[in-house]
Parts: sequence; structure tokens; C-alpha cells
Amino acid sequence: MTFNLAFKALSDPNRRQIIKMLQDGDMTAGDIASRFDMTKPSISHHLNVLKQADLVQDVRKGQNIYYSLNTTVFQELIGWFYDLRGVAGESGKNSKPR
Amino acid sequence: MTFNLAFKALSDPNRRQIIKMLQDGDMTAGDIASRFDMTKPSISHHLNVLKQADLVQDVRKGQNIYYSLNTTVFQELIGWFYDLRGVAGESGKNSKPR
Repeated sequence: MTFNLAFKALSDPNRRQIIKMLQDGDMTAGDIASRFDMTKPSISHHLNVLKQADLVQDVRKGQNIYYSLNTTVFQELIGWFYDLRGVAGESGKNSKPR
Repeated sequence: MTFNLAFKALSDPNRRQIIKMLQDGDMTAGDIASRFDMTKPSISHHLNVLKQADLVQDVRKGQNIYYSLNTTVFQELIGWFYDLRGVAGESGKNSKPR
């Protein structure tokens, strides 16, 4: 995974909002679009940026494509912050994600 | 602080490298430049992006300006990841940065 693409993807508030939605469960692009005041092409664009950054995965189930969070990559990002000595605090250091 | 600017700033590998250097202690722009194969104006540009994102602070000491990490903002970023249920894992959740 590339940290460049991941952090760039996270720099947009709509994309962070999509991530927050997906923590509650997988969603189709239509599900996501219905909760945004945004056109479907815009939603598709944001989902593609998130996919290219590996933050989100898509899985076909029957006729639908569901989007889900790629928790591995989020753990790698959290790990980057924890590797900053003195930033996360000692209690954090001891529980660095495995 | 704005998450948009912070994540955008982190999307550049040179800026992430500068952050890693500053974890070991405050540095002047000259100190930082001496450890990069990069022009001083480029270093200044990256330091400005980091400053505008509030990830880095500058403090004048005598004739020099020293750059240091703004640990508060890093903790807010870590907090954003921890607020994602199911991503950080249970051990992480219990030690969410205060």
C-alpha cells in the first residue's frame, strides 16, 4: 500500500464521511449516494479514489457491488503514527496494533 | 485544526520524512536541509505546508528558528482513526489517546 495515496484520499471530508459510514457495515454505491447530497458520478469518483488508496474494497454479491473498509491498511496507517516516538504517548505505545 | 490540510500534508513522502526527523528533537530549516538532497526553497515549501496544517510549529530561539512537532494535532489524527469502530481493534480502543 502507498501512504501517499492513502493520506491524499483522507484529505477530503466527503471521503472521510464515506469511511465513517462504512464502519457500520458494507454498502453499495447507491446506499452511499442516498445519504449524500451529491451526484452518483461524484460518489463514484470518491469511491475510486478510496479504492486506489486501498482504504476500501469492493466485493460483488449477486447483482450488487458492496464497498467495505480495508482494516489492514487502516492499521498500517495507525502504525505509522505510533512509530512517532513521543507523539502517541506511552499508553499508546504499549498497545501498538499487531 | 483541519483534517483536510493535515492529511494533505502527510501525503508527501518528504514531509513524512521531515516529521520522522523532528521526533528526535527540534531542528532548524538548515539542519533539515543538510539531511536532504533538496534545495532550501523546497525544504521551506514543505515546512510551510506542515506549519499550515498545524503539524509543525516554529519557535525563535536567539537568531534561529526551530521547528518542532505539534503533538496535540497528531493525537487528534490518531483519535480519528480510533473512532473508526472495528478498525483499530479492541486493545487499541481501550487505550485511546486522552
